[in-house]
Amino acid sequence: MNTEHPPDAEYMQLALNEAAKGLGRTSPNPPVGCVIVRDGEIASEIVGRGFHPKAGEPHAEVFALREAGERARGATAYVTLEPCSHDGRTPPCADALIAAGVARVVVAAGDPNPQVNGRGLEKLRAAGIEVATGVLEAAAVRQQAGFRSLVTRGRPHVIYKYAMTLDGKVAALNEGNGPVSGPEARARVMAWRNEVDAVAVGARTALLDNPQLNVRGLDGGRDPRAVLFDPEGHLPASARAVREGTVLVLREGRSTPLERDPRVTVLHAHSLQGALEQLAGLGVATLLLEGGPTLASAFFEAGLIDELRVFVAPKLLGAGLSPLLAPVRSMHAATELAVERVEVVGNDVLVIGGLSV
Amino acid sequence: MNTEHPPDAEYMQLALNEAAKGLGRTSPNPPVGCVIVRDGEIASEIVGRGFHPKAGEPHAEVFALREAGERARGATAYVTLEPCSHDGRTPPCADALIAAGVARVVVAAGDPNPQVNGRGLEKLRAAGIEVATGVLEAAAVRQQAGFRSLVTRGRPHVIYKYAMTLDGKVAALNEGNGPVSGPEARARVMAWRNEVDAVAVGARTALLDNPQLNVRGLDGGRDPRAVLFDPEGHLPASARAVREGTVLVLREGRSTPLERDPRVTVLHAHSLQGALEQLAGLGVATLLLEGGPTLASAFFEAGLIDELRVFVAPKLLGAGLSPLLAPVRSMHAATELAVERVEVVGNDVLVIGGLSV
Repeated sequence: MNTEHPPDAEYMQLALNEAAKGLGRTSPNPPVGCVIVRDGEIASEIVGRGFHPKAGEPHAEVFALREAGERARGATAYVTLEPCSHDGRTPPCADALIAAGVARVVVAAGDPNPQVNGRGLEKLRAAGIEVATGVLEAAAVRQQAGFRSLVTRGRPHVIYKYAMTLDGKVAALNEGNGPVSGPEARARVMAWRNEVDAVAVGARTALLDNPQLNVRGLDGGRDPRAVLFDPEGHLPASARAVREGTVLVLREGRSTPLERDPRVTVLHAHSLQGALEQLAGLGVATLLLEGGPTLASAFFEAGLIDELRVFVAPKLLGAGLSPLLAPVRSMHAATELAVERVEVVGNDVLVIGGLSV
Repeated sequence: MNTEHPPDAEYMQLALNEAAKGLGRTSPNPPVGCVIVRDGEIASEIVGRGFHPKAGEPHAEVFALREAGERARGATAYVTLEPCSHDGRTPPCADALIAAGVARVVVAAGDPNPQVNGRGLEKLRAAGIEVATGVLEAAAVRQQAGFRSLVTRGRPHVIYKYAMTLDGKVAALNEGNGPVSGPEARARVMAWRNEVDAVAVGARTALLDNPQLNVRGLDGGRDPRAVLFDPEGHLPASARAVREGTVLVLREGRSTPLERDPRVTVLHAHSLQGALEQLAGLGVATLLLEGGPTLASAFFEAGLIDELRVFVAPKLLGAGLSPLLAPVRSMHAATELAVERVEVVGNDVLVIGGLSV
C-alpha cells in the first residue's frame, strides 16, 4: 500500500494560501499562515489551519494550534515565517509550538526583524523540535515583501502598476482616454487593491481621471488607503479618492483647503523617500502606485520602485503618453526586471517582475 | 482492436509543415504542402509528401503523387491550398490528382486567384472525388497571407516587427543603443527573415544602425531582399544592406549615387501604397518592416500594416523612442489586434497579432 505523504512544499503552499487571507490587513505585521499536519498510517491529515488576520490579534500559529488541540502533539507545523521568539502584543509563538508538543516545524522564510532573526528557530531547536527552513522561501519572501521592506528599509514596498498598449502608450495625448486594458485586467487590479495597504496617484491623474482608488466588485474586499501626491496642493475637496484614511502628500510649506477635511491625513515631505518613510509610520507596508507617468518617473529615478505589474493590451494607439518619461540614458543602462510571471488575462498580457534597485 | 486513423486536422498540420519549407522561396506563388495518406486495416500510412519549392518548379501535389506512385489510388490527399485547375507554368494539379485515382481530397483553404477560386474543387467533385474543405483554414490562410495579399490587393502582406522595453521604448534618445531583446528573440527574427520575401527599414535606421538585414546563424537560410526606404536619397553606397537584389525606394524625381550600383533596383514612388505595389511587381509577397518608428508610423497611418510581431523585453529604459509616433487620437479609437500568439522567448515576451485594417 502506498502511504500518501505530500512533500513539505505542498503543505507550505497551503500555509501561504492561509497567509494570503490576511494580505492588506496585517500591517505593520506580516501576513503569516500556518498549517498543522499529523502523519497517519495511510495518509497525513491537516488538523489545524490559521492566519494572522490583523495587527493586535493572535498570530497564525495560535489559530492553527487552537484548532488542532491535542492532535498537535507529535505533528508537523508549517509556518510561512519564522515563529516569533519575543513578547509582543501576543506571547511568543515559538513557546506556543513547544508547549503544544509539536515534533517538527517547517518554515518558509526567516524573520528579518532584529528582535527575531533566527532566535525563533534557535528556541525551537533548543526544545528538541526538528526544524526545516527555506521551503517555498522565494514565494514567502514575495508575499511578505511589504513587511520586510518596513523592517529592513523603513519604507513600503512600492509596486508600479500600469496598462499600456502594444505600442507602449498608457494614455492618449488629447486626453480622450478610455480604458487601456480589458475587464479581466481591471478585476485583477481590484484584487490587488484589496491586498495592499495603500494606493497612490499623482495630482495630475487625480485631477484628470479623478479615480476612486477603491475596491469594487469583490466579495469581502476592503478599500486600501488612498494616497494623493499633490505637492503644490492643487486638488479640490471634491476629489473622489477623499475618504476616511486618505493621505495627502504636500511639499513642505504648502497648504490646501483639503487639509481641513477631518478624514484626511496630511504629510509634508521634502522628498519621495521622506514621504515613503512617513507612510511607513502610518503602517503602510505595501504601496500600489497607479500613475501617472510623471509621478512614476520620479519614483523610478529615485530608485523607489520595487516591483512592476504591467498589462500589455493588444491595441495600437499611435501617439501617446509613455509609462515612464525619465531618466535619459542608453539602452545598455536599462534597468533589468526579474520576471516572476507572464500570464494572459482576458485579452491582455500581464507581466510581473521585481526590480533590483 | 482500435484502428488508428488520426483526424484530418493532424494530417493537414503535416501538410502545413511541408508547405512551410517553401516559405520565402515561392513568391509570387503561394507556399503549399501536400500529404497523401492511405488507410490501412490497422493504421493509416503516409505514402507521399511534397511542397512547392519555388515558382517555376512543380507544385506540392506533384511531388507527393510522385512519391506515392500507385499507392495514391484510393488514398486521401491533404493539400493546404485548393489545387489549381488551370494551365500555368505546370499542368493543373486537379487533373493530376484525378489521374492518380485519389479517392478523397481535403483542402485547408480555397484559392482566391480568379483563375481558380473554386474551380479546382469543382473539377475534383465532377470526377467523383470526395472533397472536404476548411480544415485548419485559419492557419493556412495565415501561412499564405503574402500570396493572398498579392492576389486580392496587389501589394505585399506587411508585418511590423519590433522589440520594446516594458516601458514601451524601442531605442534610447541619446543613440546609445544596445539590443533591446535577448539572443533567443534575435534568433527568432533570423528565422522570420528567412521566411519572408523582403525586409525593410527607413533611411534613419539604415544610417544609424546600418543593419545587414540578412540571415545569420540559420542552417539552410537564405537572405531576403533588403528594401531601403530612402525618399531623399541620403544613404551612402557603403550601407551594409546593399547586396544583390537590394531595393532602394526614392521619392519621385530624386536620385542618388546608389542608383549606379548594378546590384540595386531603384523604385521611384509617390506614396507608400505605390511603393508596395511596385514591390509586388518584383514578386515581394511578404514584407517584414523592421523600423524605425518614423517609417512604421507612416505605414500605420496609411493603414498598411497587416500584422505585428512584438518582443517585450523585461527592462525599463525611462525616456526613449516609441515604436509608433502617430497618429494622435483618443484611446477609444485605438486599433485593436487579433492576438494569434503570446509566447515567452528567452527572457522576452512575444506577442503576434493581426490588424484588421
